Amino acid sequence: MTSPTASPVTAPRILARCRALVRPALSRAVRQLHPWHAEITAFSLGWDGVDGDDVPGAHGKGVRQALAVLGAEAVGAEARDAVPGAVAVELIHTFSLLHDDIMDGDETRRRRATAWKAYGTGPAVLAGDALFAQAVRTLTDAPGRQCAPALRLLAGTLTDLVHGQADDLLFESRPWTGPDAVRAQEYRLMAERKTGALLGCAAGLGALLGGAGRTEADALAAAGRHLGVAFQAADDVLGIWGDPAVTGKPVHGDLGRGKKTFPVLAALAAGGPAATELAALLRGGPLDEESVRRAAALVEEAGGRAAATAEAHGHLERARACLESVSSAPDAVEEMLTLFPYIVDRAL
Amino acid sequence: MTSPTASPVTAPRILARCRALVRPALSRAVRQLHPWHAEITAFSLGWDGVDGDDVPGAHGKGVRQALAVLGAEAVGAEARDAVPGAVAVELIHTFSLLHDDIMDGDETRRRRATAWKAYGTGPAVLAGDALFAQAVRTLTDAPGRQCAPALRLLAGTLTDLVHGQADDLLFESRPWTGPDAVRAQEYRLMAERKTGALLGCAAGLGALLGGAGRTEADALAAAGRHLGVAFQAADDVLGIWGDPAVTGKPVHGDLGRGKKTFPVLAALAAGGPAATELAALLRGGPLDEESVRRAAALVEEAGGRAAATAEAHGHLERARACLESVSSAPDAVEEMLTLFPYIVDRAL
Repeated sequence: MTSPTASPVTAPRILARCRALVRPALSRAVRQLHPWHAEITAFSLGWDGVDGDDVPGAHGKGVRQALAVLGAEAVGAEARDAVPGAVAVELIHTFSLLHDDIMDGDETRRRRATAWKAYGTGPAVLAGDALFAQAVRTLTDAPGRQCAPALRLLAGTLTDLVHGQADDLLFESRPWTGPDAVRAQEYRLMAERKTGALLGCAAGLGALLGGAGRTEADALAAAGRHLGVAFQAADDVLGIWGDPAVTGKPVHGDLGRGKKTFPVLAALAAGGPAATELAALLRGGPLDEESVRRAAALVEEAGGRAAATAEAHGHLERARACLESVSSAPDAVEEMLTLFPYIVDRAL
Repeated sequence: MTSPTASPVTAPRILARCRALVRPALSRAVRQLHPWHAEITAFSLGWDGVDGDDVPGAHGKGVRQALAVLGAEAVGAEARDAVPGAVAVELIHTFSLLHDDIMDGDETRRRRATAWKAYGTGPAVLAGDALFAQAVRTLTDAPGRQCAPALRLLAGTLTDLVHGQADDLLFESRPWTGPDAVRAQEYRLMAERKTGALLGCAAGLGALLGGAGRTEADALAAAGRHLGVAFQAADDVLGIWGDPAVTGKPVHGDLGRGKKTFPVLAALAAGGPAATELAALLRGGPLDEESVRRAAALVEEAGGRAAATAEAHGHLERARACLESVSSAPDAVEEMLTLFPYIVDRAL
């Protein structure tokens, strides 16, 4: 599936093209909300106002809308066919950030206050609900006869999202070791639901709205799900060894918070002296700065960092393989293949 | 539309028949949730367990599911055609109670702790999201080709619900008098969105899933919307003058909380010495027990109670009138006409 010549289109240019294409419809969807919810949403999206300029560094890359657009193009449809799907997945993504930040107690995101911190918990809950409703409405209002399969895909995705978030929250109270410890396969399934489902939904919705049959749409959705697992593993590496100047998060942050992530779970499961020392350290409760540094070294020594990197690469490869059956428009598939490692590799 | 003989079927029997019909599918929908969300939902619904017995007095009447079932029967369809719609509206109702109790800070409902009080804010937010997702999924999985119009009705309803809840919350910070005071028409629109939309959705979904055309479905949805406004006005009367032994709420509760309800807004808008004294009292801030009693007397003296009662009767009459165009199955329409005043009259 590699092109004989290097792709001339870089990932940032692909993302910018898709954002420019989707933005007018996304702005319209936000403007249709209750003014209070439009304001909270514009804040969450890093827009100064609904039609205003972006706050530098505060907006997302728009990965999900891009996957929707490329999903339509990859099955030979026009980019504009994907727009309702692209808007729906961006609205759902913003909804999930709003609600997850409440549940996780996160006070900052992209170097700004989170919505619940800025507007209060109640308004942030309701604004999230409004985005959820608007996402469903965007698809029911979409032209064409693809409404039913598109909505079925979205509904299944929403179920996955909440299931994955619930498991992620429940993992917090599970022990680090022993029969009740979180297994790698459970963690993978959580990541597939919490992160992969919406990426897969984006690509699959684009394909469905572009008139694709079930086989192509399923292949694109499966690619997105693997991409999500790869992203989560890479993001977990970043959460421990990422540069705070780039991530905007404290060094070793996930370890300091006692978060169960792939590198730590893999290190503990590996056994050996480093794993044994790591387990004793983690069971001791909240870690001070020196213990966090020691824990990070032990995770690496026990092979947790390498395992997470291999996990990311493995699922990235499987995401690529899913696209082999999608052959209507090689250029669009090529752009998707350019985007996949860009999304994952930032951490590796 | 009145029957020449008195209806032999009482409202409680109609509600019980519909609950029995819908319960297996509703239990299945709840069991499909993440176990954590199934538990919170069973608690919220007043079930001991998903398949267990009801907690006496803790479950709702199931008005929405009954309207869905009667909506299908009223257009000549089988009751079972309405079941996915009945399940969807009950799930949405439970979702909105879960989230609204967080926003309103309410600690008890039906004499038990609210879900956020019993399980924490984060879990209650997520369980609500899960119910929202499951409602959409229930409709996308429904057999037949009515998926698109049914989902369009649900999506519009969800938009109305969050819009109405936002307005209700924002009314709290509006002044009691002057140009920025809440006008009766604004309050009516809020009630139509917050309460009427879902009642209308229930009846309309039943009709659509029963294969009705748009005209009949619209008439049933409009009836439900008027019923909602009537219910809200009646509930507002109950919130001030209801018997605490029946309502489970303190006497004059809404006045003590400084809530802007129809009787108070109508009293203030009426003018005259009682309205003037009432306005001065309310502007003074939180009321002590004696002031609350005085305020209730002034609302009544200024005609607020009578206006709210007239509002309830007026919209009940309009709800009834909407059913005149629905003539496929007079017996089912008759049952709906039995249910309408039962829902509203408990307060009058």
